[in-house]
Amino acid sequence: MKIINSAREMQLYAEDLRLQGKRISFVPTMGYFHEGHLALMREAKKTGDCLVVSIYVNPTQFGPKEDLAKYPRDFDRDCRMAQSVGVDVIFFPPNEEMYPAGYQTYVNVEKVTLNLCGLSRPGHFRGVTTVCAKLFNIVKPHVAVFGKKDFQQYITIKRMVADLNLDLEIKGLATVREADGLAMSSRNVYLKEEERKSALQLSRSLQLAQKLYAGGEKSSKIIIAAVTELIKSVPYTDIDYVKICDTENLADVENIIGESVIALAVRVGATRLIDNHVFGEYLKF
Amino acid sequence: MKIINSAREMQLYAEDLRLQGKRISFVPTMGYFHEGHLALMREAKKTGDCLVVSIYVNPTQFGPKEDLAKYPRDFDRDCRMAQSVGVDVIFFPPNEEMYPAGYQTYVNVEKVTLNLCGLSRPGHFRGVTTVCAKLFNIVKPHVAVFGKKDFQQYITIKRMVADLNLDLEIKGLATVREADGLAMSSRNVYLKEEERKSALQLSRSLQLAQKLYAGGEKSSKIIIAAVTELIKSVPYTDIDYVKICDTENLADVENIIGESVIALAVRVGATRLIDNHVFGEYLKF
Repeated sequence: MKIINSAREMQLYAEDLRLQGKRISFVPTMGYFHEGHLALMREAKKTGDCLVVSIYVNPTQFGPKEDLAKYPRDFDRDCRMAQSVGVDVIFFPPNEEMYPAGYQTYVNVEKVTLNLCGLSRPGHFRGVTTVCAKLFNIVKPHVAVFGKKDFQQYITIKRMVADLNLDLEIKGLATVREADGLAMSSRNVYLKEEERKSALQLSRSLQLAQKLYAGGEKSSKIIIAAVTELIKSVPYTDIDYVKICDTENLADVENIIGESVIALAVRVGATRLIDNHVFGEYLKF
Repeated sequence: MKIINSAREMQLYAEDLRLQGKRISFVPTMGYFHEGHLALMREAKKTGDCLVVSIYVNPTQFGPKEDLAKYPRDFDRDCRMAQSVGVDVIFFPPNEEMYPAGYQTYVNVEKVTLNLCGLSRPGHFRGVTTVCAKLFNIVKPHVAVFGKKDFQQYITIKRMVADLNLDLEIKGLATVREADGLAMSSRNVYLKEEERKSALQLSRSLQLAQKLYAGGEKSSKIIIAAVTELIKSVPYTDIDYVKICDTENLADVENIIGESVIALAVRVGATRLIDNHVFGEYLKF
């Protein structure tokens, strides 16, 4: 497994692969891998000749009061895990490589970033799209795989790729969950034992929403009220939002008619967790 | 000479050329060619195996009160001129191809776009960088050639390419002028006969600035005052700005110490013209 720190070296390596007719698959990450990341890598591995994984805790997607400094990191462990699933190249750039002095260019997807996490994390998606645009230009992938746990991120990246005519395919992969239903996230390590129990209420509430929907309920208001009540019934939870949106524009819907997603963000203790479920899709754990 | 209207067709054609090891050179234009455009094409022709020229009057770089609708167009004449200098492909997309329904992604270079034309044309450079990012992804050039008549545009594009790690070289070409000094521009056709005479004062004033500089004058204030006076001395002129900036950040400089540019925008009758000169460079006509 090759480790590359320089953007230009990565780009030259990628261009060379392309000229050899090789297919590059790519998983951009912030590191501190869990089974969710490995699932993305296994999927990407299937569809390419060379699997590149980037590890970069991107400062421009963190707000001033967010957890950039204490975001969990363990490069050596990440490398071992990456190697175990057959990653070919780790791209691991330092900040000076990604945002050198004088840096001033940003990519912004204007509409799908307004709702949900865009409301409570202003600038977050601008940071995500900017770093992904850069990474796509550096790694030159034919396909990039994203987890649908970050549903708004997945939709936003797809939109950017279509709008800017980026010549790659974006694949979305279903959320990977612990056996008890908790959506895997690098931030789960922050949870204290009692908080970890309360955090289970997030996936349970999505199951409730799916059950109500399957039983014929189409009113967002009624489903959101039931979900909210269930989350509030356990300690340490502080809801940021519970919303039902169409999956294309991520605009709130009053009634579930077209393809819709229920998305929620909840602070459990000091840790902000997100989860979501597209109505009608499989959800069992 | 091949004419392509579809973005995806252009992209596939470009990718195929790259896989054959061919070098793509590119001149993005808004059409209505003059000698300045042809000079860019001749330069680009020298450095590539396939020369692509785009013709697209990009709506997102025009303000609501600007001349989008009446911007001069003559596709057949453009094709004949392009053919005469050996253009291989004309990319000529309709608006629906570049900005389909739901379009919402913009690229913004934040600092170098603030001064000069950025002050009087808010949003203009955001439109320019967005369409160029798209065109670069569609045409996949190894090199793109821009005219330095639009000096701020040239600097902005270079900045975007560096910041977003776009894998292409940006070349800038000296302004092409009429025999009497008027910088070539598609907008010159708007000038009435008497206005055309007054417009000559722009390049003359740059010559004056260069003469003062060569004679030892380094104060921006004194040079700008002399240039302003000269432009105001002829009828039909209405100055938008006359500024002296460093060539990297395009920030105003008090004294000409590092590499600096004098840039001006002047309305002559109803036509807004721009011109510039980098101190110390050759300027004779």
